[in-house]
Amino acid sequence: MADQNKLALDFLETCRVRVDAELDRCIERSAASERLQEAMRYSVLGGGKRIRPALCLAAAKAVGQAGDQGLAPACSVELIHAYSLIHDDLPAMDDDELRRGRPTTHIAFDEATAILAGDALQTLAFGLLANNSEGSAEARLAMIQELARASGSQGMVGGQAIDLESVGKTLSLSQLETMHRHKTGALIEASVRLGALTAPSVSEAALTDLTAYARALGLAFQVQDDLLDIEGDTEVIGKPQGSDAARAKPTYPALLGVAGAREHLAALLSSALESLRAFGPEADPLRAMADYVVARTH
Amino acid sequence: MADQNKLALDFLETCRVRVDAELDRCIERSAASERLQEAMRYSVLGGGKRIRPALCLAAAKAVGQAGDQGLAPACSVELIHAYSLIHDDLPAMDDDELRRGRPTTHIAFDEATAILAGDALQTLAFGLLANNSEGSAEARLAMIQELARASGSQGMVGGQAIDLESVGKTLSLSQLETMHRHKTGALIEASVRLGALTAPSVSEAALTDLTAYARALGLAFQVQDDLLDIEGDTEVIGKPQGSDAARAKPTYPALLGVAGAREHLAALLSSALESLRAFGPEADPLRAMADYVVARTH
Repeated sequence: MADQNKLALDFLETCRVRVDAELDRCIERSAASERLQEAMRYSVLGGGKRIRPALCLAAAKAVGQAGDQGLAPACSVELIHAYSLIHDDLPAMDDDELRRGRPTTHIAFDEATAILAGDALQTLAFGLLANNSEGSAEARLAMIQELARASGSQGMVGGQAIDLESVGKTLSLSQLETMHRHKTGALIEASVRLGALTAPSVSEAALTDLTAYARALGLAFQVQDDLLDIEGDTEVIGKPQGSDAARAKPTYPALLGVAGAREHLAALLSSALESLRAFGPEADPLRAMADYVVARTH
Repeated sequence: MADQNKLALDFLETCRVRVDAELDRCIERSAASERLQEAMRYSVLGGGKRIRPALCLAAAKAVGQAGDQGLAPACSVELIHAYSLIHDDLPAMDDDELRRGRPTTHIAFDEATAILAGDALQTLAFGLLANNSEGSAEARLAMIQELARASGSQGMVGGQAIDLESVGKTLSLSQLETMHRHKTGALIEASVRLGALTAPSVSEAALTDLTAYARALGLAFQVQDDLLDIEGDTEVIGKPQGSDAARAKPTYPALLGVAGAREHLAALLSSALESLRAFGPEADPLRAMADYVVARTH
């Protein structure tokens, strides 16, 4: 476990450096408005663990790709994630003033600029995949289809809408999982699947296993987020502690208790690792990432 | 001119029926949230002249495509247009309560739902192009690249950011044109170019001519919009008359006077038509659309 954690941290750090350099390059320095560009750069380049890009690159490794494959899809999922955070933080949505320990984009700039920066980052995610020089045209189209399905009304944005409708309601475990499968799970699943799609000959069986891994991990991620929200320290998690509870958002600990949520988390981790049983050491980064996600403290 | 206008109206009506049917089909009935889906449908299917889809289909005709080609790209530009209107109308942006004679999306629903509906419609535009069954994978990728370039920070969204920064300022004609080339021109240009890209063998020369047509038409469209804003009738144009002037937005009539703006409009129309000189009757729908755009009363 200690070794796994070191592997995950090393892998995350290597990914972070590569992804940050590529994100820095691809957020155009020639946007029509300088303020818009600054807001895009502020939102994307202001830190972040880059867990989704790392999952994408780890999945590419798991299907036998060399280390330099999959950077464009890795960055595309991070751009979608970044745009969704900007819009989620807006006053009309979660009304958050702090993100990763810094003022949110609409606070650092203004609401209109934040809306537009989010819009432009979404566009950039699709543009990046379309202009990706790696892979066949068919592979790039498959990635765009995957990212669109995961991030639109049937995926992430659909989940945010369910989330809005759930404030102040008591959800069943199944309803809570449906919300999270859309809101955060779909993009985590897409991160892993996009990585797998970098291999032209990836088998259906491998794709199914990796999808199962990603689904379990996506839920585990959210359970851990909920636990951190009630147990974490504001300084470490970068947002006010207890902010979900304060908004009467349904959470796993509220539904299962803290001990029950921890058990659920452990079961999801087992399930994620079990999905990788057909893979050899090439999937070690994915295994390490799973351990990391449930052990993380922020 | 009267014949041209009838041709344009007939063409627009035929396009509108086909495009509305396809938009109705492609806005999923299976969105994760019913309210989100309703907001998407309300925003897209609540009328609109479908000028951009008609330009796309007219350009497809001009490069020799049969009548049933180009529906997916035509709908994709309309989805981008629709999402941009929702976000433009938000309180933090133009704060409009009326659009096409109906309450804007954030009034009919709420701000958060409007933000998400816009986000999901953008995703849908790219998903539609990626899942388009027409054309080669290369052609579909080229369309996605085109749409991303036209709608992102270097195109439409960049123009909206310039627009925000221009409120209350006096712009030169050149600055005003730069704003409009991005804000509305880029998507009109993309509409025409996506239509042309439906033909696998479209020549560079034809693409250059059609792009020149679209650029002139895009500016003409905006000059006419500005003229309608000061001369039109609220009931006909569907938004409060004089609303640009009331917000101290720079306009062509403010800069050139009404007579000067009319002259500028006529020159842009001539330029658009002149760009089509190498085309035969197959470009008549494009010619008719140009006449229509400058003659429209709403």
